[in-house]
Amino acid sequence: MNLVVLKFGGTSVADVPQIKKIALKIKNEVDQGNKVIVVVSAMAGVTNSLIDLTKSASDKPLSSEYDVVLSTGEQVTSALLAISLDNINIKARSWLGWQVPIITDKSHGKAIIEEIKTDQILEFLKQSQVAIISGFQGISKENRISTLGRGGSDTSAVAIAASFSAQRCDIYTDVDGVYTTDPRIVKNAKKLNQITYEEMLELASQGAKVLQTRSVALAMKYNVKLRVLSSFEDLPGTSIIKEEKNMEKTEISGIAHSLNEAKITLSGVPDKPGQAAEIFGALAKYSINVDMIVQSSSINHEATDITFTIPETDLMITESTIKKIQQKIGFKKFITERNVIKISVVGNAMRTQSGIAKTMFETLANNNINIHVISTSEIKISVLISSDYYELAMRSLHSAFGLDV
Amino acid sequence: MNLVVLKFGGTSVADVPQIKKIALKIKNEVDQGNKVIVVVSAMAGVTNSLIDLTKSASDKPLSSEYDVVLSTGEQVTSALLAISLDNINIKARSWLGWQVPIITDKSHGKAIIEEIKTDQILEFLKQSQVAIISGFQGISKENRISTLGRGGSDTSAVAIAASFSAQRCDIYTDVDGVYTTDPRIVKNAKKLNQITYEEMLELASQGAKVLQTRSVALAMKYNVKLRVLSSFEDLPGTSIIKEEKNMEKTEISGIAHSLNEAKITLSGVPDKPGQAAEIFGALAKYSINVDMIVQSSSINHEATDITFTIPETDLMITESTIKKIQQKIGFKKFITERNVIKISVVGNAMRTQSGIAKTMFETLANNNINIHVISTSEIKISVLISSDYYELAMRSLHSAFGLDV
Repeated sequence: MNLVVLKFGGTSVADVPQIKKIALKIKNEVDQGNKVIVVVSAMAGVTNSLIDLTKSASDKPLSSEYDVVLSTGEQVTSALLAISLDNINIKARSWLGWQVPIITDKSHGKAIIEEIKTDQILEFLKQSQVAIISGFQGISKENRISTLGRGGSDTSAVAIAASFSAQRCDIYTDVDGVYTTDPRIVKNAKKLNQITYEEMLELASQGAKVLQTRSVALAMKYNVKLRVLSSFEDLPGTSIIKEEKNMEKTEISGIAHSLNEAKITLSGVPDKPGQAAEIFGALAKYSINVDMIVQSSSINHEATDITFTIPETDLMITESTIKKIQQKIGFKKFITERNVIKISVVGNAMRTQSGIAKTMFETLANNNINIHVISTSEIKISVLISSDYYELAMRSLHSAFGLDV
Repeated sequence: MNLVVLKFGGTSVADVPQIKKIALKIKNEVDQGNKVIVVVSAMAGVTNSLIDLTKSASDKPLSSEYDVVLSTGEQVTSALLAISLDNINIKARSWLGWQVPIITDKSHGKAIIEEIKTDQILEFLKQSQVAIISGFQGISKENRISTLGRGGSDTSAVAIAASFSAQRCDIYTDVDGVYTTDPRIVKNAKKLNQITYEEMLELASQGAKVLQTRSVALAMKYNVKLRVLSSFEDLPGTSIIKEEKNMEKTEISGIAHSLNEAKITLSGVPDKPGQAAEIFGALAKYSINVDMIVQSSSINHEATDITFTIPETDLMITESTIKKIQQKIGFKKFITERNVIKISVVGNAMRTQSGIAKTMFETLANNNINIHVISTSEIKISVLISSDYYELAMRSLHSAFGLDV
């Protein structure tokens, strides 16, 4: 069976006329002799309205019931798409998470997929052409509806593609592919024909909001052939592929940015073992996502400074949490800085090419941009800079790395 | 287990503040030591919006997918109510039709309940206080979501009360009970403290839109103790009860009216066997609900007139259907009249008391109201009159039967 998975995000199914358009895209795939599994998101704006509704009922809505409300968004889209396909004589039906079933753990609101049963849908596809699965949702072993968290439909699509051993998984969205950087900021940004999972992962987690990070990691794990395409234009898109060992890359893939960061420095931290564990353990309790961590080396082995970044929205809870342990840790000052952003240069080339860090730091220095914090991974260099300079930094790095078209 | 079923209609759960109010009503029942099953409708207006959405996708939406869309209305309400109850420390959860499960046949959009499994909810109620079941929906043996048709939540509530042998089934709505007639037309209309199932059935099917006819029939069949109450005021409501054999009723229960009727007369129908079967068989094919049927006795056994009423909305399809068989039937003229309404006098008293028909006809005659068609049942007399006179007819009949307070 030639099986493909097509995923359509919220803007691709924003209203009924748009749903009818994607029905035609799906018909194209069917006409080419493929069996198709479609994964849909809620219509644009619906999920936010549903969240507002639950929040108006309670500041802390029961997470199991929150999922019952939120899952209706994808439920409606999948049925409307089935109706639209039936209207153009394509045999299709909707499959809700619990009907497939897509079995998850019971961490409502951020559930993890444990297993996807394939037998019913495979049987169904023998007779029919298109199975439409509601994205973002599943069912716990307790027989309750669960949701995967924001952007979870990408994860649904990749997990389904992996479970059904689909030939490919096409993610239709409102951009026409993955770019070297944000085209709204750098007008010379160019579309990549292909990118490796690892690079995409760094780009996704660094703020290139094309694909949910979790879905990319899953695609990498199961080697799912992923493509990002535009729902609105008929263009080739970007393929996300496995790294070829003999592929001697001479360039970096892209430049990502992440806004809404806050930098925190604890100065005068007494230099003794267990301090970092104490600080970051306290923050982990509140699920605060600490990103860049830098500890200055202490010269006299007495005191050091610890700097880290967090999402700006977590600033208040971080401050109160850290101040509670101030006495225990014994640091002197708690210093916050809000107007910072992170810029990352991403590319497999770093593994084999030296000089990338040098080019990055030189470019920033030539533009008088001060670097607050640096952190690196095998295929990424990130710097924290003042947000005043972010367009300048992105444009000049894009040019310096030869990414301008 | 002291188990009660409470049903809240669309206006009772119109928005979140209203849902929070009914949470308090439910808390009252819990505080009295009862276990509670709540049945909810969709928030007012939601079902209509969802219908419009499916209609915008197709003139004839797949009925199975139509049900997938429509069922989200009750799904959302039940979860919002669970959140609101949790907020005031009442242990509750939502139960969707497929979770209970409420098993129906597969006639999507107008499904019939076949069985309600009680074991899971009984087990749940041992630990918790309130089970909130989404009304109007069930699941077919094919594992697809089904809906019961408009007003189906009343039927859900009564069927659930019957299956769980509930002590009572309270239907909360936007009126405070069943009245002798429509209080918007007859200002002297008075609320009935009690009414028999049979009378309620006639009132419901004759246009007293308090309870869905089907739910009353079901309550009668299983002897469910039904009450109609206001969600908005703390008043006793109306009990719908079994007729007591020794209850010598001396009055009629109420006067119902039904607008939007159309009268059709086929004149000069050759008087031979099988003509009625031919005519009404053709109409049944299109599910046209024919109501009053009168055939004039033919004097010379040659030709007769057949008159019947239908919903005004079915006039066009009726006309085209009947004209197709005009030659076969051989009638002369197809005469339609739109400006007619039906008024019914309902009461068990008719079984034992003579003179009710006489009073009805005399009252109408005294007011110069011409009767087009008469039909009767054991506990009801209906007349079709010009719609110009309907307020006058209702007021004068209400007074003539001693129903004015």
